[in-house]
Amino acid sequence: MTRPRLVEYTGVSRSVIAQRIDALLDAGLIVEDGASASTGGRPAARVRFNHDAGRVLVADLGATHGRVAVTDLAGTVLAEEPADRSIADGPGVVLDWLQDRFEALLDSVGRDRPLWGIGIGVPGPVEHAAGRAVSPPIMPGWDGYPIPEHLSEYGVPVLVDNDVNIMALGEYWTNWRHSVDDLLFIKVGTGIGCGIVVSGHLHRGAQGAAGDFGHVRVHGYDEAICTCGNTGCVEAVASGQAVADRLAAAGYDTPTARAVVREVLSGDSEATRAVREAGRVLGQVIASAVNFFNPSVIVIGGDVANAREQLLAGVREVVYQRSLPLATRHLRLVPAQLGDGAGVRGASVMVVERILAPAAVDELVERAADGRGSVPGAVPPA
Amino acid sequence: MTRPRLVEYTGVSRSVIAQRIDALLDAGLIVEDGASASTGGRPAARVRFNHDAGRVLVADLGATHGRVAVTDLAGTVLAEEPADRSIADGPGVVLDWLQDRFEALLDSVGRDRPLWGIGIGVPGPVEHAAGRAVSPPIMPGWDGYPIPEHLSEYGVPVLVDNDVNIMALGEYWTNWRHSVDDLLFIKVGTGIGCGIVVSGHLHRGAQGAAGDFGHVRVHGYDEAICTCGNTGCVEAVASGQAVADRLAAAGYDTPTARAVVREVLSGDSEATRAVREAGRVLGQVIASAVNFFNPSVIVIGGDVANAREQLLAGVREVVYQRSLPLATRHLRLVPAQLGDGAGVRGASVMVVERILAPAAVDELVERAADGRGSVPGAVPPA
Repeated sequence: MTRPRLVEYTGVSRSVIAQRIDALLDAGLIVEDGASASTGGRPAARVRFNHDAGRVLVADLGATHGRVAVTDLAGTVLAEEPADRSIADGPGVVLDWLQDRFEALLDSVGRDRPLWGIGIGVPGPVEHAAGRAVSPPIMPGWDGYPIPEHLSEYGVPVLVDNDVNIMALGEYWTNWRHSVDDLLFIKVGTGIGCGIVVSGHLHRGAQGAAGDFGHVRVHGYDEAICTCGNTGCVEAVASGQAVADRLAAAGYDTPTARAVVREVLSGDSEATRAVREAGRVLGQVIASAVNFFNPSVIVIGGDVANAREQLLAGVREVVYQRSLPLATRHLRLVPAQLGDGAGVRGASVMVVERILAPAAVDELVERAADGRGSVPGAVPPA
Repeated sequence: MTRPRLVEYTGVSRSVIAQRIDALLDAGLIVEDGASASTGGRPAARVRFNHDAGRVLVADLGATHGRVAVTDLAGTVLAEEPADRSIADGPGVVLDWLQDRFEALLDSVGRDRPLWGIGIGVPGPVEHAAGRAVSPPIMPGWDGYPIPEHLSEYGVPVLVDNDVNIMALGEYWTNWRHSVDDLLFIKVGTGIGCGIVVSGHLHRGAQGAAGDFGHVRVHGYDEAICTCGNTGCVEAVASGQAVADRLAAAGYDTPTARAVVREVLSGDSEATRAVREAGRVLGQVIASAVNFFNPSVIVIGGDVANAREQLLAGVREVVYQRSLPLATRHLRLVPAQLGDGAGVRGASVMVVERILAPAAVDELVERAADGRGSVPGAVPPA
C-alpha cells in the first residue's frame, strides 16, 4: 500500500502513519517497492512486507524425534535438520544441545540477517505466557523449567507451546487460513492430542491443556489400563504405542508406531485391521468433539495417519454414525498435508504473529523515538 | 473520555475523532458529561456512553415457555413478561403473537426512545448470519424460516441465536466477563445443550451447532433409546425429560423437569437419587469437554439445575474423576446466577454488541455525512 491509502484505510492520522512506516522501514520489516500508478501529482511510493528482513529459529521437539530449523519471516524454512533427541534427557542437556544446533543452522544460512525470535514446541502441556511446561507426563525434569531464560542470551522473544498446537498452527496457516475460521488438528503418534484453532487463533485453554483429550473414556475397552491411572482412555487403546504394543503381544516386531505403519504399508492384514479399529475408537472421541465444537475441518496427522487411509476410514465410520447430521453435513475430515514439517512451520508462524502484533510494532516505534535502535532482537552471535 | 484523550489513546486523527463523536452525539449514543479537570486553557468536555439512548426488544423462546422483554442499551430489563407459548405452533403464529407482545411492552415503557434492535433466542440450531433455524428437531415449520424478514417493518437489525447461546452470553456478560475469557454454559432443562464462550465471544461453529452435545454417547446406558435414532445419548438419560419419564414409570406424578425439581425440593429420596445420577451421567460428557476445551468456568443452568446442589454434586463426582488433574486444578463448576433471566439479558447483549461494533458506527458516520439521519433504526410505530 501507499501511505495515503493507509491513512484512508485506517483513519489513523498522517503523522502517526508516517512515524510507524519509518520505524518499520528502519527495522527492515517493510521496504519501499516502486510507485503506484499516478493519479496526477507525484506518484506515492508503495511499501510492502519484507519477509527476508530476518530469521526465526524453531524447534519441534517430540518424545524421541523432531526437527530444528531456521526460517525467514514468512515461515519459509531456509535450513533444517532432524532432532532425534530424547526429551527425557531433561531441559539442561536438551536445551544446550538445541543451542548448538541453532548455531549450526545460523552458520549454514549465514549471519547477515538479524534474529527476530525463537519458537519451540514440546510434547506436553505448556503455560504459553510463561514458556514453561506444566506437569508434563513424558518430560521428566521439565515441569516449570523456564525455557526462555535458558535461551535468553539471544536477546529475542522465546515462545513455547505444545507440539500439537504448533502443528495445528502450521497446517492451518499453510492450507486453511484463507478458507475457514475454525479447525481441529489431531495428532496420532506415540500418544494422542489435538490442537484447536478458533477464529484463526489457537485456543490454549485456562491451563494450556485444551486439546489434551488422550484420556477421554471410550466404549468397549474398560479393561485397557492407562498410564494416567484410569481405564478405557482413548490413548490406552488407539495411540500408536497402544497399537504397537497389542501387535507386539501377538508376535509382531512392532516396538513403535512407525513400525506399525511399516506393517500396514507392507500389506499385513492384522496390522491393517488394528489401525482401522484404532480409527474407530478415535472416532468416538472425535464424534464428541464434532458435536461439541462443530468445526469446518478436522485434519488428522501424526505417524499413524501415514498408514494409508486406514486410520481415517475408521474415524469416518464412527464420526458419521455418532455425530449430529447437521454438524457433519459439510465437515471435511482430511489427512495432514505438511507431514513432519507442520511443527517447525507452525512454530515460525507463532513467532512471526508475535513480532508483527500491534504491541510489538508499538515497541519498535518507541525504541526508534528513544534512540534505542530499531531491532528489538540481538544480531546473532558470531 | 475527552476528545484529546481519545486522539492520544487511539492514534486516530483529530478530524476523524471529531466526525465520529459528532455522529454518536447526533444518534444519542453518547452524551457530553461535564468537563475534565483543567490542565490550563479551556477544560475539554468529557463524553460518555448513554445507555438510555434507545430500546432493544428481546425474546427468549423455549419449547413451551420463555420470556419477552424490552431493555435499554446496557441490557437492563425495563419491562418483561412470561412467554408461555408453544414454539410448535410454527413461525407465522408465534412471530405474529411476539409482535403483539413487543407492542405491549413498548406501550408500557413509553415510546419516547428509538428502537435499536431486536434479539431472539429459539430452542434449536441457528444459522446466526441469516437469522434462520437449521433443521431444528423440536420446532416444526421453522426450518429455514426467515425470522428477520417477518419482523422487518421495525426497520432495525433482528438477530437470532440458539436459546442456550444467549443464556451463555447473559451469564458471561453479567458475572464473568471481567474475570475470565472462556466459559461453558450448560443448560439442563427438557433437553441438554451448551453455550461456548471463547475469548469473550460466542463460538457458534460452522453450522451454528456448536454446543449441541445432547447426543454424545454415555457409558452404562446402551439400552436408552434416543429420539435421534441412536442409543445411549446423554439427553436420553440425563435430561429433565428423561428423568421425569423414569420417575413417572415408577409411579411419580412427574410429567416435566419442573415436576422433578418439585419432588427433589420436597425431600423425596428417589427423585433426589435420580437427579444425582443424572448429574453423574452429565459429568461424563462434561469431563470430555473439560479435557477438550480446558475452560476456566463451567456454569450449570436450566430447570434441573434448580434441584438444590444434587445435579452439580453428581457432575463434580465424575468430572474430577475423569478429567486431567491439570485441567481441573483451578476449574470452577458453579450454578447459574441469573435463572430464567439469562436469556433475555444475553439477547440484549447480542444486539448491543452489534449496534456498537465498528462497522455499525461507520454506518452512523456515513448516514450523517449523507444527510440520511442519525439513527439507523425506525422510531417504534405508535
